Amino acid sequence: MADAEEQPPARRPGGRTARVRAQILAATTELVARDGITGFRYEEVADRAGVHRTSVYRNWPDREELVVEALLRYAEDLASVADTGDLHRDLVDYLLALATGLHTPFGRTLEQAVQPAQHSPAIRGALARILDQRTAALQQRIDTATHRGELPPTDSAFLGEMLSGPVRLIVHRGLRPFTRADADRIVTVVLAGIRATARPQD
Amino acid sequence: MADAEEQPPARRPGGRTARVRAQILAATTELVARDGITGFRYEEVADRAGVHRTSVYRNWPDREELVVEALLRYAEDLASVADTGDLHRDLVDYLLALATGLHTPFGRTLEQAVQPAQHSPAIRGALARILDQRTAALQQRIDTATHRGELPPTDSAFLGEMLSGPVRLIVHRGLRPFTRADADRIVTVVLAGIRATARPQD
Repeated sequence: MADAEEQPPARRPGGRTARVRAQILAATTELVARDGITGFRYEEVADRAGVHRTSVYRNWPDREELVVEALLRYAEDLASVADTGDLHRDLVDYLLALATGLHTPFGRTLEQAVQPAQHSPAIRGALARILDQRTAALQQRIDTATHRGELPPTDSAFLGEMLSGPVRLIVHRGLRPFTRADADRIVTVVLAGIRATARPQD
Repeated sequence: MADAEEQPPARRPGGRTARVRAQILAATTELVARDGITGFRYEEVADRAGVHRTSVYRNWPDREELVVEALLRYAEDLASVADTGDLHRDLVDYLLALATGLHTPFGRTLEQAVQPAQHSPAIRGALARILDQRTAALQQRIDTATHRGELPPTDSAFLGEMLSGPVRLIVHRGLRPFTRADADRIVTVVLAGIRATARPQD
């Protein structure tokens, strides 16, 4: 209780304003997913968020800032990898969450937006930051496992690519749903491969 | 010489017509890569191919048929995996070729076109066929290795995804060039993982 009271009260702007902003950002993410970063319209953001158009303009006079904030806000939840102490299980859960995330409006936005290099530096910067945060969370979990002796010392960035790459390929091809069995097979093969090819430590 | 003369002469429609058609298809692939399947214009195809606009309309009155043929034609070269007898090396070469292919106009077209599900059945069918051909070539090479005892019996479709997924991720993120060392690491880890986790044969 004492801890909670000591938190700065203005950390999250309260009540209606915060709710309106959250609704606008959620609507923006959905519309960007549907129409692209350059294709969505402020009017439709307002309609979808259930607010007046002037609320959107007042809060975000700059269209690009709206997009960047919408992307970053919805990325926060994705950049976490659990640590239950069981590396295999944590990685399987992470890959399942990644696969699910690729199907959400936000995930589609991210995928769609990353590929063409035609966006502004601010938007490219935001997308790069989102992907970096996610990569960093995965690398951190792998590094923790290495410190605990569950894995030999390894290039955690590379290991992250080995794990995430097949997930993205399977989801994007869309020929079959991505299942826990898929995640399990990927983690099993990659961890076994890393362990089998590790250089012995002197 | 004798062999060449025995080839059916009509296999490739001769001379100017064939050249014009090839130029039109090449121009179409490039423009589809730049402007998307629905965005390119016949006029520009003609300009780029160095032919009169009527040549395009006469050969392909149906726009969709033009796109499908352009995609299929440029896919032919991609659907091959060498068999030198050295599985590791053949897979490394394949992954390098895949990475290079993703940077070509055709590769970009394919990537761009696969994701949104908004295309017609004919175009989606062509894209699926291209990807299937490529997957089949990779699977066949893996199956051959299994028959030779270089690999334990394995799900070659899954192994293909484990190999190709990281390549696509690294190329798409574009943070660094994809090198032979990357291809080598991927093949090393995946083959070691498959061998280490194979069920013993009864």
